Amino acid sequence: MKLYPEKLSRLHKKFLKDLFPEKQSSFDDGALLACGVDASRKHAKPLALVRPKTVEQISELLKWAQLEQVPVYPRARATNKVGGCVPVRHGVVVSTLDMNRILDIDPRDFVAVVEPGVVTSDLQKAVEYKGLFYPPDPASIKISTIGGNISTCAGGMRAVKYGVTRDYVLGLEAVLPGGEIIHTGGRTHKNVVGLDLTRLMVGSAGTLGLITQATLKLLPLPETSASVLIGFKDLSGCLQGAEAVFGCGILPTAMELMDHNTLNALEIHSDVPWSKGTCGALLLKIDGSKEAVANDINRIEDALKDVPVTFMEKGTGGDQERLWELRRVISPAAFNLAPDKQGEDVAVPRGSVGKAIEGYHAIGRKLGVIILCFGHLGDGNIHVSVMHDKSVPVQADAALKAKKEIFEYTLKLGGTLSGEHGIGLTKAKFIGMQLGKTELKLMSGIKKVFDPYNIMNPGKVV
Amino acid sequence: MKLYPEKLSRLHKKFLKDLFPEKQSSFDDGALLACGVDASRKHAKPLALVRPKTVEQISELLKWAQLEQVPVYPRARATNKVGGCVPVRHGVVVSTLDMNRILDIDPRDFVAVVEPGVVTSDLQKAVEYKGLFYPPDPASIKISTIGGNISTCAGGMRAVKYGVTRDYVLGLEAVLPGGEIIHTGGRTHKNVVGLDLTRLMVGSAGTLGLITQATLKLLPLPETSASVLIGFKDLSGCLQGAEAVFGCGILPTAMELMDHNTLNALEIHSDVPWSKGTCGALLLKIDGSKEAVANDINRIEDALKDVPVTFMEKGTGGDQERLWELRRVISPAAFNLAPDKQGEDVAVPRGSVGKAIEGYHAIGRKLGVIILCFGHLGDGNIHVSVMHDKSVPVQADAALKAKKEIFEYTLKLGGTLSGEHGIGLTKAKFIGMQLGKTELKLMSGIKKVFDPYNIMNPGKVV
Repeated sequence: MKLYPEKLSRLHKKFLKDLFPEKQSSFDDGALLACGVDASRKHAKPLALVRPKTVEQISELLKWAQLEQVPVYPRARATNKVGGCVPVRHGVVVSTLDMNRILDIDPRDFVAVVEPGVVTSDLQKAVEYKGLFYPPDPASIKISTIGGNISTCAGGMRAVKYGVTRDYVLGLEAVLPGGEIIHTGGRTHKNVVGLDLTRLMVGSAGTLGLITQATLKLLPLPETSASVLIGFKDLSGCLQGAEAVFGCGILPTAMELMDHNTLNALEIHSDVPWSKGTCGALLLKIDGSKEAVANDINRIEDALKDVPVTFMEKGTGGDQERLWELRRVISPAAFNLAPDKQGEDVAVPRGSVGKAIEGYHAIGRKLGVIILCFGHLGDGNIHVSVMHDKSVPVQADAALKAKKEIFEYTLKLGGTLSGEHGIGLTKAKFIGMQLGKTELKLMSGIKKVFDPYNIMNPGKVV
Repeated sequence: MKLYPEKLSRLHKKFLKDLFPEKQSSFDDGALLACGVDASRKHAKPLALVRPKTVEQISELLKWAQLEQVPVYPRARATNKVGGCVPVRHGVVVSTLDMNRILDIDPRDFVAVVEPGVVTSDLQKAVEYKGLFYPPDPASIKISTIGGNISTCAGGMRAVKYGVTRDYVLGLEAVLPGGEIIHTGGRTHKNVVGLDLTRLMVGSAGTLGLITQATLKLLPLPETSASVLIGFKDLSGCLQGAEAVFGCGILPTAMELMDHNTLNALEIHSDVPWSKGTCGALLLKIDGSKEAVANDINRIEDALKDVPVTFMEKGTGGDQERLWELRRVISPAAFNLAPDKQGEDVAVPRGSVGKAIEGYHAIGRKLGVIILCFGHLGDGNIHVSVMHDKSVPVQADAALKAKKEIFEYTLKLGGTLSGEHGIGLTKAKFIGMQLGKTELKLMSGIKKVFDPYNIMNPGKVV
């Protein structure tokens, strides 16, 4: 393994303080510990934290970092769930939170230009105000940033109809290790000149360069939306319901699933609207013109006539928020079942979701842990939460065993270890289960083209 | 420049004949000349033509080709307009036309698995028969293949609403130079494990490896569609009309523009429905449920109330084909204006289309050539046809000058040299106008990772 400096020299510190004066750099323990953790709860202490305001500062920093072989860890709100932001080889954490300007929203070009530290929901509000629409909506939308979303290729609920972050990135400005500034793609909605560096950067988890600006594609804002929460007596009812909806030609904006354990957790946590005997639920959203939405809701009701439904509640306008609130509180509610959670974001081919969930439940029963399955049924991206008490050694052990078995079963069904969160630290040792040696060698070769000295987010498999 | 063999040795030929028995390989002049040209009319004569039926044959071929340093030129229907298929360094042309099986269409996974030689419209018909939808629709759809579409990241009319080929490729099987077979992505609709090799291969024009299988994302088939042809008295009316449509929140499936020169060409060629005084037209398509489509058409009519419209004709069901036929005959009709055409597929930011077209017309007036502008207004991807008579030296010269000036003006507006066709041979010398040295160096570095001896489609800038 490559050796990186374990501490900064006086010259190093002087360089950083000169480049990032006053509050733009920190070296004290409190700040360093705070910026060494992410939503995975993994942590490591970096050697310095800097808060650039300009691309020029980042360019100077990356020139220096490559010369001095100091690792660089890009970071925004650190909502990453797999340890992607953790500075495992020390080095300098680069916070992009002071680069948070929306530089342009153009209703004629259908384009927004933003700095990486812009919080995604802030951008969404700003574009909606102009009658425009930025579809990607990871669950962390109110706290995560565009820079982070691009680095992980964040998904979300609306991916069923609208796709993921990748599909909305038209162009990027980024700084390479060594300090060179690159521009990929541009402001046009179609562009096929040269290899697709833009999409190569998307999802690369800060391992190729540091993104300093993004040009994003916008759509016209749909006139309205409506939601339906539908209860079923079991999982197979849910899947039958989902098939009936797709079968009538409707592409819902979102199609979320909650299994019986998820419903149990919610029942303990909140007032729930569904009737007794409901052991699975679908939450759908439709958007479009008023007439189209009203008609689609009718078609969904028709399509479900032959499916045994235990419960149905519709919401329109602001009224649908109470339905989505149930979806949003799943994470906190899950802790009513056990004090610790190990969450995976596997995805399987859409038609295998039922089989996958049954398999995950069987793994839970065998190992004696409760497994909740919920999330993006519409694109086969299921959140699998292994609820356990890690202070009980046998349960901690069972959770780890469950993780491996969940991955094995997912891959057996033609699935993927990650639909949204990436590999980071927590899945690094499993990546060889999915990717072949030749594919990994290509990725490592590409990484070397961008970052020959491995200073960008080292210690991670993208 | 690297030296490649100018002819095949007896051993080379024996190897190829053994690997590709009988009609699977050709060495005669007729066959070699025929497979050395593409829709750009550029041509070069290869040393051999082979027609593999299996990935194993391709693997053996690429192992041999790397060892012997023989260039390999993947080829399907060769509808490429920029010389992308032309074997400029001789070598072996590999036709994928005998690998044309649709291996799977799965209505539950919303996935199709196909070999590269499948003609795109054949796939579309096959999936539509099962109530599914594969949106990418390059104009060449009836004659071009999925393999070619992926290699160029083909666009099309429906890109406004549905995006381009890139957005529908979930996974690939490809053979690398040296013979190793890789698998990228998979059958899941979301997948963020490792660097995005799938989208790196899309649009790479056969320079990284040879695609042998693709897993494609499908959508539910929209219930119906309708089209409207709208005439305006000038270009600015067209643009005002387009803005009014987007402004009422409608994202049309397709939004095509025809300028006055295009209308003139069509008037000479066909019976046209528009009234005198129409000097620009928009052709829109809407899809969705019956109710949504009917309602959107009403909203479009409402939105256009304040825009001076000279003509409007609606079409639904099969009836709309006569409107689209006008769009499809633009290419042959253009030759009514002059015997030779030089066509570009530049794209500009959507809001700059008006300025761009005015600029292209001004270039035409200055240089004395007729310039037709038509195409994908909805995504700013304008087809610019420079009509001239190349037997008249001053006109041939003017056309070449126009090409450069069109590119310069496009880039000045923040546009791109190619929205759909790629760079190939015909734009190779212009690529430095758009891409910087660092970006080109990254691309060349990535190319070396995949193809260290430059045997895949050499002589092309991707």
